[in-house]
Amino acid sequence: TADRGQQLAGIQGLVLDISGVLYDSGGEAGGLPIPGSIDAVKKIKASGLRLRFCTNETQATRDKFVEKLQRLGFDIAVNEVTAPATAACRILKERNLRPHLLVHDDLVPEFDQIDKANPNCVVIGDAADNFSYQNLNEAFRVLIGLEKPILISLGSGRYYKETDGLKLDVGAYMKTLEYACDIQAEVVGKPAKTFFQSALAEMGVEPQQAIMIGDDIVNDVGGAQQCGMKALLVRTGKYRPCDEQHPQVKADGYVDNLAEAVDVILKQLHK
Amino acid sequence: TADRGQQLAGIQGLVLDISGVLYDSGGEAGGLPIPGSIDAVKKIKASGLRLRFCTNETQATRDKFVEKLQRLGFDIAVNEVTAPATAACRILKERNLRPHLLVHDDLVPEFDQIDKANPNCVVIGDAADNFSYQNLNEAFRVLIGLEKPILISLGSGRYYKETDGLKLDVGAYMKTLEYACDIQAEVVGKPAKTFFQSALAEMGVEPQQAIMIGDDIVNDVGGAQQCGMKALLVRTGKYRPCDEQHPQVKADGYVDNLAEAVDVILKQLHK
Repeated sequence: TADRGQQLAGIQGLVLDISGVLYDSGGEAGGLPIPGSIDAVKKIKASGLRLRFCTNETQATRDKFVEKLQRLGFDIAVNEVTAPATAACRILKERNLRPHLLVHDDLVPEFDQIDKANPNCVVIGDAADNFSYQNLNEAFRVLIGLEKPILISLGSGRYYKETDGLKLDVGAYMKTLEYACDIQAEVVGKPAKTFFQSALAEMGVEPQQAIMIGDDIVNDVGGAQQCGMKALLVRTGKYRPCDEQHPQVKADGYVDNLAEAVDVILKQLHK
Repeated sequence: TADRGQQLAGIQGLVLDISGVLYDSGGEAGGLPIPGSIDAVKKIKASGLRLRFCTNETQATRDKFVEKLQRLGFDIAVNEVTAPATAACRILKERNLRPHLLVHDDLVPEFDQIDKANPNCVVIGDAADNFSYQNLNEAFRVLIGLEKPILISLGSGRYYKETDGLKLDVGAYMKTLEYACDIQAEVVGKPAKTFFQSALAEMGVEPQQAIMIGDDIVNDVGGAQQCGMKALLVRTGKYRPCDEQHPQVKADGYVDNLAEAVDVILKQLHK
């Protein structure tokens, strides 16, 4: 339609959520591609549009996460993915912050290029067994020793499920340090504005030139719109019909899946 | 004065804070008696008034804490002290709650008489090194598995100081479980109404028949008044002159120390 054509004027890049948009997680292979999504990614890349993947995953390094998606058939590279650790590194560099890390051992390599001497902030991630009393106290002492304590949290999840039961997620321990220091953490990850801004900066695209495509009406659609982007909701993944009547958030469009979203966008752009 | 005499009509029991009222903590002996306080306790006991000690201490068992006070010269017995663990046990019994304990090993004996099979609540204390990821997850799973999760926290402190540095206190970990389960903990200890009620029940005295004497305008004086008791503020311990102009809380009287408080009370009662 004419409306859609106007909406898409000046679009230069797409930002894709991964889980629930590219694939559904679980099972022996670690997940199943959502029909049409593998081809949709190829079409975006062929179109000349810039592309960025934007995920809240923090249980694995980007490397391992991307390896899984490649095995499932996706044309995706590590340096195309914005994950909380990546975004945190960008923030740390921009603000000359030297983190004390309270994260999973597997995530530490993500911070290889970051100066960690004489820390002036704390970065907390899903540290799992590294959430010992001693490690929490160490992070706490770094914070309470700072004139203006800065706590950066890689997500704000409450808990998640593993094969051996429910586990406390990073958000629960973020609250430990928030309360002890009487501060508010800066949460990195969707729906934080800085997280989307980080993805856009990696693409070299302005918010009004980008479209977010996700299955989460609040964290994907609402978050992207807050940042000045347009956003489409797909009817896959965690989507539920009531999301289309969400009291606060209205998507710029509702599509059955990523394949339809890409077809609509490319058709309008090539008019 | 006539006013004071009327205020004290029907008084049958006194509730004393310990730290900052009986003694100041610290130093090699673990503390120093506040001048006149040892005698003041003796006078109360000789007067026939009922007496209860009410503390927020949770770093030691009542036994060890009371041993220290006895060494300092106080006539005090373990069964005269209301501490958070004692109060929690009373609550557990009253409500048929069977706790999963996340507390310091030294505190476990306080719960010897409590049924802990098939837990239907969690009691969290200053567990120190017992605050491992595994132990937190265990407590979390008990809570999240309950239809109506009940979390009882022995205090809500943020942190405290030990010789080897600052340590996270129970309140910080209370927040971990509160956030993970989206619940509010029931905090035992001053200024909680249930805590004072527990002390009163141990004495067999009604709120309007009791006077609280403390050095904390909010937790001692305000808490006791909320519970229907009268309350005096002593000018010892953590007292600061600005406490007498507190915007929310007005004590029923201000006295220089416990000795003066006891003299005033006994003089009026014997009129």
